[in-house]
Amino acid sequence: MGRVTERRRVTRYDAGRSTERPDTLAVEEPLEIRVDGTPVSVSMRTPGHDLDLALGFLVTEGIVAKPSDVAAAINCADNVVDVSLRTPLPDLSPTRNFFTSSSCGMCGKASIDAVRTTSAYDVSTDPLVVTAQVLTSLPESLRAAQRVFDRTGGLHAAGLFDAQGQLLCLREDVGRHNAVDKVVGWAVQESRLPLTGTVLQVSGRTSFELVQKAVMGGVPFLAAVSAPSSLAVELADEMGLTLVGFLRGETFNVYTGGQRLAGH
Amino acid sequence: MGRVTERRRVTRYDAGRSTERPDTLAVEEPLEIRVDGTPVSVSMRTPGHDLDLALGFLVTEGIVAKPSDVAAAINCADNVVDVSLRTPLPDLSPTRNFFTSSSCGMCGKASIDAVRTTSAYDVSTDPLVVTAQVLTSLPESLRAAQRVFDRTGGLHAAGLFDAQGQLLCLREDVGRHNAVDKVVGWAVQESRLPLTGTVLQVSGRTSFELVQKAVMGGVPFLAAVSAPSSLAVELADEMGLTLVGFLRGETFNVYTGGQRLAGH
Repeated sequence: MGRVTERRRVTRYDAGRSTERPDTLAVEEPLEIRVDGTPVSVSMRTPGHDLDLALGFLVTEGIVAKPSDVAAAINCADNVVDVSLRTPLPDLSPTRNFFTSSSCGMCGKASIDAVRTTSAYDVSTDPLVVTAQVLTSLPESLRAAQRVFDRTGGLHAAGLFDAQGQLLCLREDVGRHNAVDKVVGWAVQESRLPLTGTVLQVSGRTSFELVQKAVMGGVPFLAAVSAPSSLAVELADEMGLTLVGFLRGETFNVYTGGQRLAGH
Repeated sequence: MGRVTERRRVTRYDAGRSTERPDTLAVEEPLEIRVDGTPVSVSMRTPGHDLDLALGFLVTEGIVAKPSDVAAAINCADNVVDVSLRTPLPDLSPTRNFFTSSSCGMCGKASIDAVRTTSAYDVSTDPLVVTAQVLTSLPESLRAAQRVFDRTGGLHAAGLFDAQGQLLCLREDVGRHNAVDKVVGWAVQESRLPLTGTVLQVSGRTSFELVQKAVMGGVPFLAAVSAPSSLAVELADEMGLTLVGFLRGETFNVYTGGQRLAGH
């Protein structure tokens, strides 16, 4: 695993006084993802679990549908992962690249349609039910399992839980989307796709992109500490994903898919 | 201006009791950016200041170097902005698109080199000096000027200030990068590029991408409420940008460019 944190001297100001001291930073480095030798993406990410990130990215981008599509994934050089597929690489035309080249990697209405057609999994029929007690325990479980966050204040986390609130997988990254991709990639390596019956808990806000990634991995329940965007709620609604936000202490908001809350 | 927030009914759980109530969401919608009719990007963004976003994006991506390159920018359809240039559109090859198609829009070492060669402005020589008193006043000024944040909890802000702490421009968005692009685009429309002598204050963390955008706009000083990544610090150091993090109350960390703090 690469370095997750880095020490650096900083000048700390406090009420007019300054002191020199070391500070711990979350590491951000580029990872080039190749498919059968062809570069398909470069992501700025926190090193560690690079194979998870590459495999998860390929699933959530719709390039890999199921674990058996993958023949091998190797770190072929520093900050380069090459994934060999058993299926031909889909056509990644310039137009498609343009349309995933925005800063958030998304393309709006066109992408909403793309999720419908390219996601191999239908999360709307997942019979998962979670109690409010389990749900409200997840943020604390996530924080307790985060080894890095408290040192840098700079890493997002994504944790995958079962219906009893048992942590199945935790991944951290400077990018929220990467943390989720790493969880999905873990599932690829464990041959656990689709992630039926699971809750994905994320540390920040929920965007369209995160909802899309959850659906691509077959996750039926996404819970976040902070607010969702309007399009996150719309997409969750259309896909039959349960979306919870502002999950803090004993309180939370259910935006969509309330049938997965026990007693409702 | 489009809708910035949207009302939606949610189920609020609190200590085992649930109630139905309206909730306010930050709107996220796709904006297609075209140059002389050719689509170059689709960004998920919060509607409003779309011309700023399109113009800022073109500057921070290195497609537009100075305000006089732009002949016109118009909202040619709902969620579509077309920018007419006085210069030919640079070649946006598939490889380049691939290499900006990651979820964070960045391409690591290659991009660090690209900033060096494509940024029209050298921020390292900017003689700006800011007092700690002015600096510590910025987060509160930003929050006070944010009309939307308190309603949704879901919007990032970027505020541009002068050396006296006077707010020049505030922009909000679900995406941090978009808020910064909107500020840079405002400067294009105001013919204020490069943004010499200014401090850009952002509400969240600092990534490589935000440092790059600041440099592309000629901003010499970037201050954030939260942590920078390792690569944000490295790029700021190389470019001669002053980078401040954890700016909260009376305290802050200076990572690079400490000569722009008064008395140091």
